[in-house]
Amino acid sequence: MTIAGNMIIGQDLVKGSKKAIYAVNPATGENLEPAYLGGSAQEVDRACALAEQAFDTYRETDLETRAKFLEQIAANLAANGPAIIERAGLESGLPKARLEGELGRTMNQLKLFAEEVRAGRWLGVKIDTAMPNRTPLPRSDIRLRHIPLGPVVVFGASNFPLAFSVAGGDTASALAAGCPVVVKGHSAHPGTSELVGQVIQAAVKSCGMPEGTFSLLFGSGADIGSALVADPRVKAVGFTGSRSGGVALMKIAAARSEPIPVYAEMSSINPVYLLPEALKNRADAIATGFVNSMLMGSGQFCTNPGLMIVKDAPELDAFISKVADLISVAQPGTMLTPGIHQAFESGVGKLKDNGNVQLLAQAQEVSGPNQCRARLFVTTAQAFLNDHALRDEVFGSNSLVIRCKTEEDIFAITNSLEGQLTATVLMDPSDNKAFIQKLMSILERKVGRILFNGYPTGVEVCHAMVHGGPFPATSDSRTTSVGTEAIWRFLRPVAYQDIPEDLLPSALKDDGWQVPKFINGK
Amino acid sequence: MTIAGNMIIGQDLVKGSKKAIYAVNPATGENLEPAYLGGSAQEVDRACALAEQAFDTYRETDLETRAKFLEQIAANLAANGPAIIERAGLESGLPKARLEGELGRTMNQLKLFAEEVRAGRWLGVKIDTAMPNRTPLPRSDIRLRHIPLGPVVVFGASNFPLAFSVAGGDTASALAAGCPVVVKGHSAHPGTSELVGQVIQAAVKSCGMPEGTFSLLFGSGADIGSALVADPRVKAVGFTGSRSGGVALMKIAAARSEPIPVYAEMSSINPVYLLPEALKNRADAIATGFVNSMLMGSGQFCTNPGLMIVKDAPELDAFISKVADLISVAQPGTMLTPGIHQAFESGVGKLKDNGNVQLLAQAQEVSGPNQCRARLFVTTAQAFLNDHALRDEVFGSNSLVIRCKTEEDIFAITNSLEGQLTATVLMDPSDNKAFIQKLMSILERKVGRILFNGYPTGVEVCHAMVHGGPFPATSDSRTTSVGTEAIWRFLRPVAYQDIPEDLLPSALKDDGWQVPKFINGK
Repeated sequence: MTIAGNMIIGQDLVKGSKKAIYAVNPATGENLEPAYLGGSAQEVDRACALAEQAFDTYRETDLETRAKFLEQIAANLAANGPAIIERAGLESGLPKARLEGELGRTMNQLKLFAEEVRAGRWLGVKIDTAMPNRTPLPRSDIRLRHIPLGPVVVFGASNFPLAFSVAGGDTASALAAGCPVVVKGHSAHPGTSELVGQVIQAAVKSCGMPEGTFSLLFGSGADIGSALVADPRVKAVGFTGSRSGGVALMKIAAARSEPIPVYAEMSSINPVYLLPEALKNRADAIATGFVNSMLMGSGQFCTNPGLMIVKDAPELDAFISKVADLISVAQPGTMLTPGIHQAFESGVGKLKDNGNVQLLAQAQEVSGPNQCRARLFVTTAQAFLNDHALRDEVFGSNSLVIRCKTEEDIFAITNSLEGQLTATVLMDPSDNKAFIQKLMSILERKVGRILFNGYPTGVEVCHAMVHGGPFPATSDSRTTSVGTEAIWRFLRPVAYQDIPEDLLPSALKDDGWQVPKFINGK
Repeated sequence: MTIAGNMIIGQDLVKGSKKAIYAVNPATGENLEPAYLGGSAQEVDRACALAEQAFDTYRETDLETRAKFLEQIAANLAANGPAIIERAGLESGLPKARLEGELGRTMNQLKLFAEEVRAGRWLGVKIDTAMPNRTPLPRSDIRLRHIPLGPVVVFGASNFPLAFSVAGGDTASALAAGCPVVVKGHSAHPGTSELVGQVIQAAVKSCGMPEGTFSLLFGSGADIGSALVADPRVKAVGFTGSRSGGVALMKIAAARSEPIPVYAEMSSINPVYLLPEALKNRADAIATGFVNSMLMGSGQFCTNPGLMIVKDAPELDAFISKVADLISVAQPGTMLTPGIHQAFESGVGKLKDNGNVQLLAQAQEVSGPNQCRARLFVTTAQAFLNDHALRDEVFGSNSLVIRCKTEEDIFAITNSLEGQLTATVLMDPSDNKAFIQKLMSILERKVGRILFNGYPTGVEVCHAMVHGGPFPATSDSRTTSVGTEAIWRFLRPVAYQDIPEDLLPSALKDDGWQVPKFINGK
């Protein structure tokens, strides 16, 4: 595995011809070699053509073969872990321990999807057997399985250069579903992407998959991203990033002559509700937990708690002071890119300039480029309800406390929120149950995950996870981008009626694959 | 139940204020009383407001209560069957026996969804229990259930005034999912719609559901349809109708500040492949079966076989003559509306004017207004491949035979097709298996249902049915509008993390509802 400035198109290493992209070491502000020349329409065409060629073979791989392929990618990641982590650290400013954890998560995700492929639930097999003697009309034999949609384009995310990037959750779930993947690598970590891309393509080769099962391109959104989403051979898109970026892809996909689904995970401010009894009984522990969640990774998580909603109480001033104190002594952390740092400061600046918002605390002075100086603001319920700008995500360690006078304020604020990935309720057993139930019934309609007495950062990769939510948290509230349910994004049902046994897909034969089968409603 | 020209908004019977709509008896061309004055923005607002008010109560009905409500609608349909069928016959020109069958199908559909509600699979419960001692980090208790999306707008279809209209599959599956429904009644059968709407609203009342659980509006697409899809309280749309109509709704839904899913079932020409051995051995039986399918209901089915693809063979001329003979003696049938009849004649006219297409047969002369005179055309593979217009659906009894020279022609034609609801393969055991397998692998990517040695008309309502397919067959290939899988269109997952047992929804409690639960991957 080498870092050489190449795109990976099937088995070919290819240099682009468009404007050079350099990763920037955010800790120094300096460019990192090598240059990554952006791809052109020609490379988009070649990657999509290879993916299309690979599809019919790859989609019919048996369960064990496909599972082993995913496990081989995980094994190759492990074998190349040190080099990947070193480069990712340079490109992202993220500490080694965090990247080691993220690499482990990325491998575990691939292994979990390998198990999911083997289990075969994703085929969703349903069989209604024939009733030749039914009156007035006989019933045919009808069998359903799910098949993959086709080639998928994945946009790497900046904030998880491993777990949500080239070999991340979108790629793992699309490959598990049987879809070839073309990744548009994020320009913030091209070297990491190139290494991981080679890891995947090595697994493609050693496992005997068709070469078009995986490709990796670099370039600008305008040159490469739009062309990939518009390509008629592409049948779905996975994206994690900004709201404007996601919405742009949704528009391109909807304008195609054959519209396709875009799974964009975009924007969330993740409200945290602090209830009176919890405030009274556990103020210090909650202040610590909240600040830890808010500062983690310089706040560069989709689930970072950007909003705290709390009713006025005698204990509130002391609690807010405690939070402010903890933030004031916090050390700044390097952000992922100069662009993200600029956007953070711009968002913070707008809050500072807002006459109805008060700055409560800021972390220690920065000591280097692109550092995140955490901020805490406070406002009133009325100000929040009257000012849509206060609902905008500020990506980074920034939170806004909303002091509410009444429970009705809290409901009104909650109803005014756009779709969110998460909502958090901090409560004690003595808190008002009826209030919590009403709050939950509003939150269920707004978010993908509701959590109690914890913090929203840290998304477990498991069967019951929903990392999703109504727009603009995602483009499709019916899906999740984390956990095994993510595989369903890339599948669709096909019914087979009265097909001779020897022509049926193995999953549907009476004596075929051993997978869960739902037969005649049972 | 009376036919009085009313809309139904919750429990209120309301007269519109916009332009009057009259049903037309297509057999006579005469207007049917009474006038249905179209609704305005005010009625859209009121119906959506009631649906929104109803949602939180209706969505949390227990399984038995919701199932009984669906069964009550079915019972009310049965009790009012004669009046409904009489009016539907006048408004649609469809024979009584067909409408009796369709009413039975509509009731069975509601009963099937009642059983589906009781079974609770639609909740999709998944539980990953806590691992407090896991290292390096403990795992939370995470539980997933599906909740309904919110109020749903259903557009009644013209061609099934019962089974795909006010109480049809879209309404049944949305109500089963827990979504209140606002129906925009089809202007072709307002009287039937008014009767069925009263039947549903009577069940709403007698079962104690909130009144906004169901409303029925009339009016033009421009006045009412667009406003309903654009209303922020509406969270999904079900539609069966024309490609232009469906695409218009998709555009409105995508342009909302919160885009929502549109499930539009639109356009399909349903290719039928006749293989050489089947042609040799069973030409007469196939000719009869094909013509019966094509003539059924004057061809006014989404799954009507509009294309037959067959390789030249010594037996082909005789087969085509047989098909032509059967069509020539066929009696014309009354079509649903003057508009559908005009569109049919316009589509047939384009084929007649096409220099590369030859008219082979037409049914007997028409003897009354709006009658469908079936047509059979033939063309070559090359002509079909060169002329996109030949892929357009002609809604009614019309089929185009494509004579192919080679198997490659057949593959090229298949690859050139847009998405379809169905594809049919007529084969004998001695037909070339490798050819069929390659054909199936192309067809799987193009269609929602593949059937062998049958005909595509007649869509079984069961668990394994897929009445769907890639665009433009539908707007969302991941779904079906017929069968129990249709319920998933109106649901989305929500994860609950570390929620105290007494605050969990009943479906997720350890000792809660008895529904299928997927616990720790098992």
